Order: sequence, then structure tokens, then C-alpha cells
Amino acid sequence: MANFGGHAIPGSFFLLYGLWLTVKFTLQHLWKTRHPKARQPTPQFFKKSEYTEGGLLMFAAFVGMMVEQFVVDGPHAHLFDSENQSWVKLMNWQHSTMYLFFGIAGMASVARVAFKLVPVGVDRITLSLALFVEGFLFYFHVHKRPALDAHIHSLLLVAVFGGSASTMVEVFIRDHFLLQLFGAGMFILQGSWFYQIGFVLYPLTGPPWDEEMHDNSMFVTMCFCWHLAVALLIVASTTVLVWCTATRLSVRDRDTEIGLRDTSSESSSQKALLEESEEE
Amino acid sequence: MANFGGHAIPGSFFLLYGLWLTVKFTLQHLWKTRHPKARQPTPQFFKKSEYTEGGLLMFAAFVGMMVEQFVVDGPHAHLFDSENQSWVKLMNWQHSTMYLFFGIAGMASVARVAFKLVPVGVDRITLSLALFVEGFLFYFHVHKRPALDAHIHSLLLVAVFGGSASTMVEVFIRDHFLLQLFGAGMFILQGSWFYQIGFVLYPLTGPPWDEEMHDNSMFVTMCFCWHLAVALLIVASTTVLVWCTATRLSVRDRDTEIGLRDTSSESSSQKALLEESEEE
Amino acid sequence: MANFGGHAIPGSFFLLYGLWLTVKFTLQHLWKTRHPKARQPTPQFFKKSEYTEGGLLMFAAFVGMMVEQFVVDGPHAHLFDSENQSWVKLMNWQHSTMYLFFGIAGMASVARVAFKLVPVGVDRITLSLALFVEGFLFYFHVHKRPALDAHIHSLLLVAVFGGSASTMVEVFIRDHFLLQLFGAGMFILQGSWFYQIGFVLYPLTGPPWDEEMHDNSMFVTMCFCWHLAVALLIVASTTVLVWCTATRLSVRDRDTEIGLRDTSSESSSQKALLEESEEE
Amino acid sequence: MANFGGHAIPGSFFLLYGLWLTVKFTLQHLWKTRHPKARQPTPQFFKKSEYTEGGLLMFAAFVGMMVEQFVVDGPHAHLFDSENQSWVKLMNWQHSTMYLFFGIAGMASVARVAFKLVPVGVDRITLSLALFVEGFLFYFHVHKRPALDAHIHSLLLVAVFGGSASTMVEVFIRDHFLLQLFGAGMFILQGSWFYQIGFVLYPLTGPPWDEEMHDNSMFVTMCFCWHLAVALLIVASTTVLVWCTATRLSVRDRDTEIGLRDTSSESSSQKALLEESEEE
Repeated sequence: MANFGGHAIPGSFFLLYGLWLTVKFTLQHLWKTRHPKARQPTPQFFKKSEYTEGGLLMFAAFVGMMVEQFVVDGPHAHLFDSENQSWVKLMNWQHSTMYLFFGIAGMASVARVAFKLVPVGVDRITLSLALFVEGFLFYFHVHKRPALDAHIHSLLLVAVFGGSASTMVEVFIRDHFLLQLFGAGMFILQGSWFYQIGFVLYPLTGPPWDEEMHDNSMFVTMCFCWHLAVALLIVASTTVLVWCTATRLSVRDRDTEIGLRDTSSESSSQKALLEESEEE
Repeated sequence: MANFGGHAIPGSFFLLYGLWLTVKFTLQHLWKTRHPKARQPTPQFFKKSEYTEGGLLMFAAFVGMMVEQFVVDGPHAHLFDSENQSWVKLMNWQHSTMYLFFGIAGMASVARVAFKLVPVGVDRITLSLALFVEGFLFYFHVHKRPALDAHIHSLLLVAVFGGSASTMVEVFIRDHFLLQLFGAGMFILQGSWFYQIGFVLYPLTGPPWDEEMHDNSMFVTMCFCWHLAVALLIVASTTVLVWCTATRLSVRDRDTEIGLRDTSSESSSQKALLEESEEE
Repeated sequence: MANFGGHAIPGSFFLLYGLWLTVKFTLQHLWKTRHPKARQPTPQFFKKSEYTEGGLLMFAAFVGMMVEQFVVDGPHAHLFDSENQSWVKLMNWQHSTMYLFFGIAGMASVARVAFKLVPVGVDRITLSLALFVEGFLFYFHVHKRPALDAHIHSLLLVAVFGGSASTMVEVFIRDHFLLQLFGAGMFILQGSWFYQIGFVLYPLTGPPWDEEMHDNSMFVTMCFCWHLAVALLIVASTTVLVWCTATRLSVRDRDTEIGLRDTSSESSSQKALLEESEEE
Repeated sequence: MANFGGHAIPGSFFLLYGLWLTVKFTLQHLWKTRHPKARQPTPQFFKKSEYTEGGLLMFAAFVGMMVEQFVVDGPHAHLFDSENQSWVKLMNWQHSTMYLFFGIAGMASVARVAFKLVPVGVDRITLSLALFVEGFLFYFHVHKRPALDAHIHSLLLVAVFGGSASTMVEVFIRDHFLLQLFGAGMFILQGSWFYQIGFVLYPLTGPPWDEEMHDNSMFVTMCFCWHLAVALLIVASTTVLVWCTATRLSVRDRDTEIGLRDTSSESSSQKALLEESEEE
């Protein structure tokens, strides 16, 4: 959808998803740090959050596909117009395809938690493929557009393929906190960059940008790096915030602690709390 | 062979090979899950299947080479026509070369099972090289063709090099179920895409496609992603099917269980069965 | 800053940083070789050096940004000139952005030592990103320049991306001495190549180089390899020098040994010294 | 040196080096298979062979540099002709640079065996850099040449960069037999391809090849794959030959066995021999 809203909607989705991943991975890492010896299954809280995450992903993908198909100027599920011998609204079909793969990633995410037989990592590989397909379609998307339009979309590919690669590595290197945060950061970067594309190509106020001026391309390149810096900042501050909140909650009232309830290994848990209160 | 059949034959081969790999890897994974402690050699069934697989690969490669050489308009083993100072039917020679490397992979597969001294992974590295050579020759194959023809063949390269890379990684990361399924999925994708190429370039019915129309290229790009989604679906459902069948068979009649006969570790096997029946 | 000084300043910085990394990694490796069993925290000396390194990095980045902004012909923190509808001094803004990321790497370096909760490797990943951003901006920097200018800058990218990749690998493969030295060598190569760029584009004496002559490009390519050879030589000789000095110091006066004080494992340390004196 | 000899000399060098690597790695692998528990230092034979290999590499590199410099139409150590304001024989200087890096790899190889302090893998990383530099210089070498000349040289890069990458991986994954053989195979491929380049560009008999004919390029691409197949064959047969010879020798006269003398673990060695004679 070639307007500001068409970029703000996926932008918001990716921003929120990246933020959620940061929160989830921080809580998981906190849990593992507190229970280093624990071979016990991770608490119910994490399992439920996976169901919710997968479910929301599937729901968002479904809504996205429906909107792209049945929006007023959409293809309404028609692919080929045999009268004019031409394809119908291929742009919308491509966007639907992108959503489809995120839906598949959501399904894999749910399946992994629901069935023990599903191999660990299937959620990562499908998410990596979803990002790959997104980048793959965008790559052939931008041919024959004005210089600035093509350039600003190809910068998006850096975030998309960066996220795809790091998620693929997660299939093999499990539970690497930094790698997980990097992946989450790439989602945040992608989200904020979608907004930037919207602002540049469909400015809300002021005149449109000159799409052939070389200086505009140069600025946009630099601006992408600023977005990266902001994404790093957001990931870092979210992690610190979650960590501090979880620690404070678990100190104030140990029994209402979210998802970190365990009665068997109290002593080790107490020790961990003592150590942390000493460090503050 | 520039006709529909010339694309359907390798397409069928890759489709079947991908399906077979999915079945094989699922059975192997099932066996390992059931016998986690087992350092005992994998059952005779798997060894025999490797012989059969390698043998069929060699046979298929041999037939492929012969057909490419001795088909009516083939080069009949002549490489250089010294009268006209020109090469004879280089296309057929290139296809023969591709088949040759799959034959080598078949030989390595057999050699690895037959001789203990052959290092583990030699079957993977040769298969990876066979895919690399296929992609390598296709890459230089498509120069100076119409836009759609070149584009549809270069999409094939995504499946070919994707499979080559994942198979190369298998040399180092052994017995990673997800990686094995990914490789099998790339074969299935390659196979179904060969059919798609055939349908597009040599349509069975209807007028030929306009090879310079940009929209056709855009559709084909998206269609490749759909093939990927279908390949994922095929791999997933085959795995589930094989898993369920093998589990049911082993429950109904434990002694006729294919290739999973062991008498020494009955108790662990029984426990595994109990656990699974509880989950259903 | 398009003059010799503008290349000599970052050149000196990278040269010194590379040398310092070589010294640091050699001392750390020496410490680990001497205390193989030691799970005890690395000595205070290394911790302090990390603070100093991070602090200097932040300071250098801050100074760099200020200079780029408030130099006589700089942008003075103005980004957009609304009168002329044009961007102000984008070159300087891009350089400021590069410095910013090295500042972030410095912050991460300090944070990792100061807070136990910060995951190991965060200093490496931010340094890798800093190098990536540097290369990324340079890549789009060199468009539409004369052949030699573009070529000499793109050779710089080999050192920059080489360093970025090897630093990224360090996130996963910790304490690999050779990998660390390789990263240090890439910094030295980058530093000396900055000087070379300065000498070629803004010669101190003699006539300017002909920027379109093919032979000049060929020479510059070869010259880059010579710089690589010299960087290897510098890393090797620095390592040997540090190693010998540290060994001699620790033999002459075991109690004044820098950062290598330990009283608990004297016997193993003595043995190590004996072995080394035998080898000389 | 733009003639047949100028390609045959490096070709022979790479062929022999690849063969030697195959033999060395097979013997080392055989030794490790026979003495699985052995933490004892590898026998004197292997150490001596490393010295010889490194020494020969340094010698060959030195001779190569001297020949390139002081051949009749060489630059005689003159780099810049200030009279004509032009560079002197840059081709020869580039070849000298390539040899220089193989010399450095030889030095590192010797240093690693001679001094315990030199980190393991330094011989691999320098060899990888030598191949990288070779490919790097060749890459910029081939600009503005006829199509066939450029193409045939860029195919060489596949072997060169393939070898460089696999040797770099060996820094991290030590003693992986298949990886070592792959690296050796890339050297053999490179060597035989140098001969092929010589035959095509400077035919010993017959008319010169038409360098702009597309079919010639197509044939050359396919021919490269045949060379790869032959290289695989050579590596495989050399390995089998060395293995059989070493096994036969060690059976006939256990005490004269080359480099495999050990008296402490006779029983395990005897068992290994028995097992092997059973398999034959």
C-alpha cells in the first residue's frame, strides 16, 4: 500500500515484536542465571508466552493477508485477469506472501511448544525464512524506481537480511543472550526504518523530497546508522529496565514473582538475591 | 533438452530424492530418539538403504549421461567438430557434467558404508559439490537469454546453492535433524521449480508467456516463494506421517517393527512407548 | 576533512589502537598459559586496562565528533539549511556518525567490566558494529569519485570489513589468541592504509598522481598487500617483544611482575618458568 | 610471464604441493586412528616433515621472487621509472608479491614447529592469507582483457578462494581429515587449471583460440568442472594408495614402519592390525 499508513502498520508491528522479544529473552536469561543447575522444565509462564506469541503472529499475518487482499483497491483474491491478459495487483499479492511466511513462523512456534516431537529450533528456522522471503521479495521489488526510493528500500534489506542471518545462527547456537538481543534489535531497526521510509516518501507536511538528488541518498544512508544506534539504545535500556523490575519484584514479594516460582531450590535463589543486592 | 520433458525428468528426480531424504532422516531421528544411549551400530536397515540410495544415484546419473549424449539430436560423444571448428552441443555436455557429479556423490555414499576407513561426511561433501557444480554451470548457462528465462533459471540457483550450503554445513554439524530436513526441502523446492520452469517456458496449453514483460518476472519471483511454502508443507507432513506410521507399527507388533529391532534395551524402549501413548 | 591531516589523524588512532590490542591480548594469553587451571578472576591489572581502553575510546570519539562539527568549515551542528533547501556538510556529519559508534563501543567496553550482569562479548559486538558502520558509510561515500580515489578507498573496506567479521566471530569463539591478533592486525592495516591514502591523494611533495591512469590503480592494489605483510610483521614482532619482556621481568623480580602476581599456585608458575628457560 | 612456461611453473608447484598435503594428512590421520588415546607428541617424522615443507616453501618463494625480478625482461628491482613517470613491469612485481606471501606462510610453518609459544594454527592462517592475496591480486589483474582470458582467470579464483576459505576454517576446526583433503584438492585443482590456462592462451600446437567466441567460454567453464572431478579422483586414489602402502609396510615389518614406531601401546596397535586384516 503506497502511502504513509502502509508503512506505519508493518513498522509498528516490527517495533512491538522487537520490543517483546527483548523482554522475553531478558526474562529467560534472568531465569537461567538464577537457576544455573536447573534441568527442570522452564516455568509455565514461558510456555504460555510462546503460545501467545505464536498465536498473535498467526493472527497478525492473517489480518495482514486479508487487508492486502480485500482493501478497496486490492485484488480481492483474483490473481490473473484473463480479459486484459495481465496480473492483478501484484504488489498486494507480494505483501500477502510476506505475511504468509510470518504466519508459518507463528504456526511453527506454537507447534514446537505443543508437541514434544517437534525439533527445537523449528521456530527459529521458519522465522529466519520469513525474513529471508521478505528481503528476497523486496530485493526484486525496487527495480526501476527513482534512485532515492530504491536506495531507502535497499537499506531496509540490511536490517532484514541481518535479522535473517542472526536468527539462522540461533538454530545452531541456542540460548546465546547477545545473539538473541541482536535479532530483537534488527526487528526494532526494521520497524523504525519502515516509519522513516513512510516519512521520506509520503511526507506528512512540507514538500516532497527530490528523489534524484544525491545528497538526499547520502543523508538517508547516514540516517540508517542513527536508527541502528537508537535500536541499540532501546534494546539496552529495555533489558536494564526489565532486569531491574524483575529483581525488585522478586525481592519485595518472593511469592508473587512472575514465572520465577520454585520451592525446591530456595537456598540457591536466596544466595543469588543476596549477591545482587550487594552489587547494587 | 529445451522442452517440457527435459525439465520434468530432473524435476521428478529431485522431488523423489527430496521425499526419500525426508523419510530416511525421520526414521534415523526416530531411531536415535528411542535409543539415546545406544553406541551400538545403527541397524542393518539403514546400511542397506544407503547402498540402495547410492546405487540408484549412480544408476540415475549414468542413465542421465547416456540420454544426454545419445539422444537423437545429441552430441554422440563428439566434443569438437574439427571441420567447422566449433564445439558440438555444449548444452548436452554441460548436462552430462552435472549428472557426472551426482554419480560421484552416489559412489562416495556407497564407499562410506562399505569401507570403515572412508571418513564420515564424504557423502555430504560430494553431494554439496554436485549441487555447487550444478549451480555453477547454470550460472554461466543463462547469459544472453530473454529476461524471464534468465530470471526463472536464476531463481533455481537460490534452491541449488541453498541446498549446497546446507549440505556443506552437514559435514561439520552431524545428525542435526532440522538441518537435514532443510536440505531435503531444498531438493523438493528444486524439483517443483524445474516443473514450474517447464510450465512457463514450454506451456502445455495456451499461448507462450511474454518473456520481456516485467510483471511476469514479478509473478515468477512470488511464485518461487509459494513453492518454498509448499516444500516446507511437504517436508512437515511427510515427517509427521512417517513418525505416526512407525510409532503405530511398533506398538501393534513390536517384533515386526522395521529396522528398530533390539532386544537388549527393551525396558527403555517400553518406557518410550508408554510416554508417547500418554501424549497422544 | 579532505587533506593529509584528515587522513593522518584517524590513521594514527587506528595504528595505536591495533598496537595496544596486540599488547593486551599477548599479556592476557601469557597470563592464561601460566595459570591454566585458574578459575580465579583475571588480575586487577586487566580490569583497569579495560576501563582505560573504554574511557580513551569514548574520549577519542567525543573529540573526533566535536572536531568534525566545530572545525572552521564544519557544519556547527546544523544539519539542514532551510534557506537553500540543502543538507549542510554531509561529509562531516558522516564522519561524526562513524566516531559515534566507536564511542558506543567504548561505553559497552566499560559497562562490561563495571557490571557483572552485562553479557560477555558485548564489547566485541559493538566494536564489530562500529567497524561495519564505518565500512557501510565509506561504501556509499566513494560514488562518483575519480577511479583511483574510489579504488584506494574501497581497498580500505577490505581491512574494515575483515576486522568487522573477525571481531564478530570473537563474540562466539572467545579467547582465541590467533583470532584476536588477526583483529588487531586489521586495525594496524587500516591505520597504515589511511596514511597511504593521505600520501597518494594529497602528496606532501611532488606532483599529484594521475587519478585515471590504470597503472596507478594496479600499483595501489599491490601496495595494499605490502601493507598487509607489514601489519603481520608488526603484530608478530610486538607479540614476541611483549612476551620476552614479560618473561624476563617475571624472572628477574617475581614479586614486581605486572599483573601476574599470585601466591597460591607458585609451584606451577615456577615449573612454567623453568620450561621456558630451557627452551631459550 | 605471459607464455606457456609462466603458467606451467606455478602449476607444477601447486600440483606437487597439493599431492604432498594429501600424503601428509593421510599419514597423520592413519597415525591418529592407530593411537586414539595417545596424548604423546606426534612422532619425530611429522615434525621433520613440517620443517622440510616450510623450508621448501620459503625456498620456492625466494626463487620465484628472484626469477620474476631478474629475468631478462624483468624489472630488476626497479619499481618506478622517474624519467618516463611510469611504473616498471607491474605484472612481475605483482607475481613477486604473491610469492612473498607463500614465503611468509613457509616461515610461519617452520616457526610453529620450532617454538612452543607460537600458537597452533598460525601456519593455516598465513597460508589462507597467501591464497587470499593471490586471489585478490588476480581479481584486479584481469580487467580489460579479452573475454576468454578474463573468464579463464576468474575460474582460477574459484579454486583459489575455495582453498583460502577452507584453510581459514582449519584454523578453528583442527584435524578434520575431510577438510584437510578438500584444501589439498583445491591446490591440485589450481595447479591443473594453471596448465589449462597455459594450453588455452598459448597453445603449443594449432591455431590460437578465438578469445571472443562465446562457445569457447562455455567449454572452458565445463572443463573447469572436469578438472574438479579429476582433482577429487587424484586425492581419493592418493589417499587409498598411501593408506594401503603404510598398512602393508607396518604388517610386513613392524619395526621399520615409517614414523609409526611406538612400544608403549603395542596391544592396541596389534588389535588395530588384526581388525584391518579381517576387513580386507
